[in-house]
Amino acid sequence: MKLKKAVITAAGKGQRTLPLQTLVDRDGVQKSALQVIIEEILSAGINDICIVVQPGDQTTYASAAGEHARRLQFVEQGNPMGYGHAIYCAKPFTGEDAFLHLVGDHLYVSRDKHTTCAQQLAEVAAAEDCAVSAVQATREFLLPNYGVAGGKRLAGTTPLYAIDTVIEKPTPTQAEQSLIVSGLRAGYYLCFFGMHVLTPGLMDILGQQVNAMPDNNKNIQLSGALGELCRRERTLAFEVHGQRYDIGVKYGLLTAQLALALDGNDRAEVLTQLVELLAQKR
Amino acid sequence: MKLKKAVITAAGKGQRTLPLQTLVDRDGVQKSALQVIIEEILSAGINDICIVVQPGDQTTYASAAGEHARRLQFVEQGNPMGYGHAIYCAKPFTGEDAFLHLVGDHLYVSRDKHTTCAQQLAEVAAAEDCAVSAVQATREFLLPNYGVAGGKRLAGTTPLYAIDTVIEKPTPTQAEQSLIVSGLRAGYYLCFFGMHVLTPGLMDILGQQVNAMPDNNKNIQLSGALGELCRRERTLAFEVHGQRYDIGVKYGLLTAQLALALDGNDRAEVLTQLVELLAQKR
Repeated sequence: MKLKKAVITAAGKGQRTLPLQTLVDRDGVQKSALQVIIEEILSAGINDICIVVQPGDQTTYASAAGEHARRLQFVEQGNPMGYGHAIYCAKPFTGEDAFLHLVGDHLYVSRDKHTTCAQQLAEVAAAEDCAVSAVQATREFLLPNYGVAGGKRLAGTTPLYAIDTVIEKPTPTQAEQSLIVSGLRAGYYLCFFGMHVLTPGLMDILGQQVNAMPDNNKNIQLSGALGELCRRERTLAFEVHGQRYDIGVKYGLLTAQLALALDGNDRAEVLTQLVELLAQKR
Repeated sequence: MKLKKAVITAAGKGQRTLPLQTLVDRDGVQKSALQVIIEEILSAGINDICIVVQPGDQTTYASAAGEHARRLQFVEQGNPMGYGHAIYCAKPFTGEDAFLHLVGDHLYVSRDKHTTCAQQLAEVAAAEDCAVSAVQATREFLLPNYGVAGGKRLAGTTPLYAIDTVIEKPTPTQAEQSLIVSGLRAGYYLCFFGMHVLTPGLMDILGQQVNAMPDNNKNIQLSGALGELCRRERTLAFEVHGQRYDIGVKYGLLTAQLALALDGNDRAEVLTQLVELLAQKR
C-alpha cells in the first residue's frame, strides 16, 4: 500500500498544549512540536494530514503549524470517549484508505541518519501491504505506560512480528502469560511506539465499539481494537530503529529537546553549554 | 522603600509565546514560564502584578498563570514603540509608587538557596530607598545583547554601584571609553539582568520621551531613560548572586530548564537521564 494520509491525535486531556511547545529541531531551527511531528509525516511522503483536536483548538494549532498549516484538516472530538474514539473521529477524512497515525505528544529520533522513523514504518507497510504498528523492545517496569503487543517473529532481516495479542497497560503477570515474544531479551516486551499504519478494517472495529457501548462512560482504546484486528486480518509489529520521546511526562520536553540537539547540527554547541552548566552548579 | 507592585513586560515581537512555555520548576512541579516568573515576584513579598501584553493576549496569559491569575492586571501596548514604552504603558498601574520590573522572557536561578534574585534586589531597594537595577558582570563579547551600566563601586560588602552612564548594546569601543568599572575583572562589564526596581521619576522620563518624539518610528528604550535618571536621582546597580536565563534565544528554554532542574529537587534524576542520553548517541 502507498500511504497518502496521516492522522495526528491531539485532543487528549492534558495533551492539548504539548504540540504548541517550542523547541529547536535537529537542523537547528526553532519550531513548535507540532511542526516537528508534521515534518516527520512529510518525510514519509505523506502530504494529507488530519489533526483530531478539542473543539476550539483549530486556530492555535493552525498557527503553531506555521507554513504547514495549508496541508492540515481538522476534526473535532466533541465528546471525548478515549484514544480509540479520537482516531475514529478522523473516519470522514480517512474513508476507505489506510493511513499513518501519530500521537501528538511524542517526538521521534531515528537511529538511521537518512531514514526517519515514519519513513521506516511506511516502507514496511508498503512492502507488507497490511496494518503495522511501530514497537520498541521495552523493559518490564515501563509496561504501565504502554499498549503492548505479543506475537511471533517473522523470518527475514527486518524485525517484524505477526501480532496475536494486544493488551493496554498490562500487569507483569498478564505480560508474562500472554505477551512474551521469543527472540527478545528476557524482561523485555514489544511496547507501542505511538506510530501506526492503520487500515479501514481497524476503523470498522472502532466504529462497532463506539456504537456497541452505552453512551455514558465510553472509553474506546486503540489497543482493544488492534487486539480484534489481528484476529480478522494480518497485523504486524515493526521494531523501529529509533527512539520515541513522550513530551507529556515530567522532563519529557527536556529529554526530547536534548535528544534532538545531541542528534543534530548543534551537538557540539549544546554539549558545551551542558558542561558549563554542570560546572556552575554546586 | 517597601515594594508592593511589579510590572512584567511581555508584548515584544517574538516574545509573546515565551511565558506560555511549559517547564518543570526547581520544586519538580510542571508550570508555565509565566508562573515561574510570577513566583519569583511573590518571593519578594510583592502581590500586585501588572503584565504588559499585546492586545488580545490577556486570556491566554491568564490561563497560563494558573492559580495566580487573580493577582494579575493586564495593560495592552496597542501601538508598540519599544521596550521603554511597554514599561510606560503600566503607568496607570504604578501611579506614584516605585515598582519591581521583570522581563517576560528571562528566568532566574539564585546562587543563594534561601533568597531568590528578586528578593535580593527588593532587599537592596528597601535599604537604599532608590532605583536599583540588577546587573551581572558579563564578558565583552556578549555586550551586543544587553543594556550596560557604568559607574563607581560603593563602599561596603554588598556589591553596589552608583550608575553614571547607561548604554544600550554598546560597541566594544563605547564600552571601553565609558563603561569600565574599576574592581571588575578586565573585559567584564555590568550588563542588565532583566530585573529592575524603578521609581516614579523613571516613569516621568519615559513619559517625556514618549511625548517628545515624532509619532512615526518611535523606539523608546529603558536604557536611555535610566541614563537620564542617574543624572536626576540616585540610581544604583546591584550585582545579583544568581544567574539569568534568556528563554528567547536559541536553546534558551533548554538551558533554563536544565539550570532549574540541576538546581532543584530532581537533580539526580535529571543527571541520570542526561548520562543515559549521552551514552545512547553516536
